Amino acid sequence: MRKVEVCLSPELIHLYDPEEKIVVVVDIFRATSTMIAALANGVTAITPVMDLETCKAYKDKGYIIAGERDGKRANGFEMGNSPVAFFEGNFQGKKLAMTTTNGTVAIEKTKSTAHAVLIGAFVNLSATVSFIQNQEKDVLILCAGWKGKFNLEDSLYAGALVSKLHPHFGTDCDSAIAMKSLYESNAHRQQLFLGQASHAKRLQNSGIEKDIDFCLEVDKYDFIAILQGNEISILK
Amino acid sequence: MRKVEVCLSPELIHLYDPEEKIVVVVDIFRATSTMIAALANGVTAITPVMDLETCKAYKDKGYIIAGERDGKRANGFEMGNSPVAFFEGNFQGKKLAMTTTNGTVAIEKTKSTAHAVLIGAFVNLSATVSFIQNQEKDVLILCAGWKGKFNLEDSLYAGALVSKLHPHFGTDCDSAIAMKSLYESNAHRQQLFLGQASHAKRLQNSGIEKDIDFCLEVDKYDFIAILQGNEISILK
Repeated sequence: MRKVEVCLSPELIHLYDPEEKIVVVVDIFRATSTMIAALANGVTAITPVMDLETCKAYKDKGYIIAGERDGKRANGFEMGNSPVAFFEGNFQGKKLAMTTTNGTVAIEKTKSTAHAVLIGAFVNLSATVSFIQNQEKDVLILCAGWKGKFNLEDSLYAGALVSKLHPHFGTDCDSAIAMKSLYESNAHRQQLFLGQASHAKRLQNSGIEKDIDFCLEVDKYDFIAILQGNEISILK
Repeated sequence: MRKVEVCLSPELIHLYDPEEKIVVVVDIFRATSTMIAALANGVTAITPVMDLETCKAYKDKGYIIAGERDGKRANGFEMGNSPVAFFEGNFQGKKLAMTTTNGTVAIEKTKSTAHAVLIGAFVNLSATVSFIQNQEKDVLILCAGWKGKFNLEDSLYAGALVSKLHPHFGTDCDSAIAMKSLYESNAHRQQLFLGQASHAKRLQNSGIEKDIDFCLEVDKYDFIAILQGNEISILK
């Protein structure tokens, strides 16, 4: 039987073996939600970049550049890490280079050995589930967390994915069992439960409730986003 | 308001600051449960030791030596990591040196800076809660995990402790919020839920169901165990 595992923080990724697995990287608030929003609004490809300076250099190559650190748009960047910002303006046919506090690091840590790297978000949850169901591969869900720590929103997404893959995928991974239970007992009050999350509070203080609402919307889109080479795009 | 945090693995401890906090180290299956069993059955002091060779050397100093690796008694040791073994034989007034796969590492990682290090187990949960309630200190619960990974039983204990400290202790730690919820939604079926845990399965295969039953018994004892210097003993 195919297996699913959950890695709760990029700091623990050395304990897992991504080789030949489908890795789903998730950073709900907000990197991976923003990537899906960008692709849904015309961006054709996203290059995840580890550091701010390298990311800035993409501007001269005609890319839109998005940079976030500690939840805020970094100096000298056109875009930060806000998904709703991609609903304003014209992004048709544009390429995006993006660096974020947690999300891009998580992608970097698995991309060399994984069978495939998918971008996980609530906004395209069911599409991701359907795609995985049709592959004969084990799955590793990698939560981006917050500066290395466990966070509630990424873990809850992991639990949702494990729950929806059950019973076609089994698990002997304790974090998968725990997050599945956490999701199933809180799904009926997800907004309320996630309202307690440290990062949701951080974002509420920044006055970006619209971003939070977007990131928690389930199945707004029916495409999946996949890393191919160094670019994330919609799988046709 | 006093705060409680949960660190889900010793591999994440560098992200937390144990300074001036009460650290509760927990390794339900079985190091910390075994320590409580040993103290309840006459052992006066336990010295946690990082490696097998150093631990063995304590034999010449008149200590009983307990050594476990990968869930099994290590070669050349009188005791392994079985709590029920301390119910057989006479341990009155004896000192114990002990090294285990996960538990002793967790103790080592916090003991230098913490205000106090307590040994957490279900068998003395309420005693630990009462002690903490009477201190004016923040709390950090450190789960020993399994070889660096999250595990279900330590995390569920952490959730139980957070739940019982609420509302006297607040938290802005996402792992504390998540484990509290996990505990509260599974407390009524704790044995069943933990039966899924990878380590419970590992132990069941070793035929030590009595150890599992002991480790999950709640409030069998009403003393707390505390590290003072390099020795763990009952707080008088």
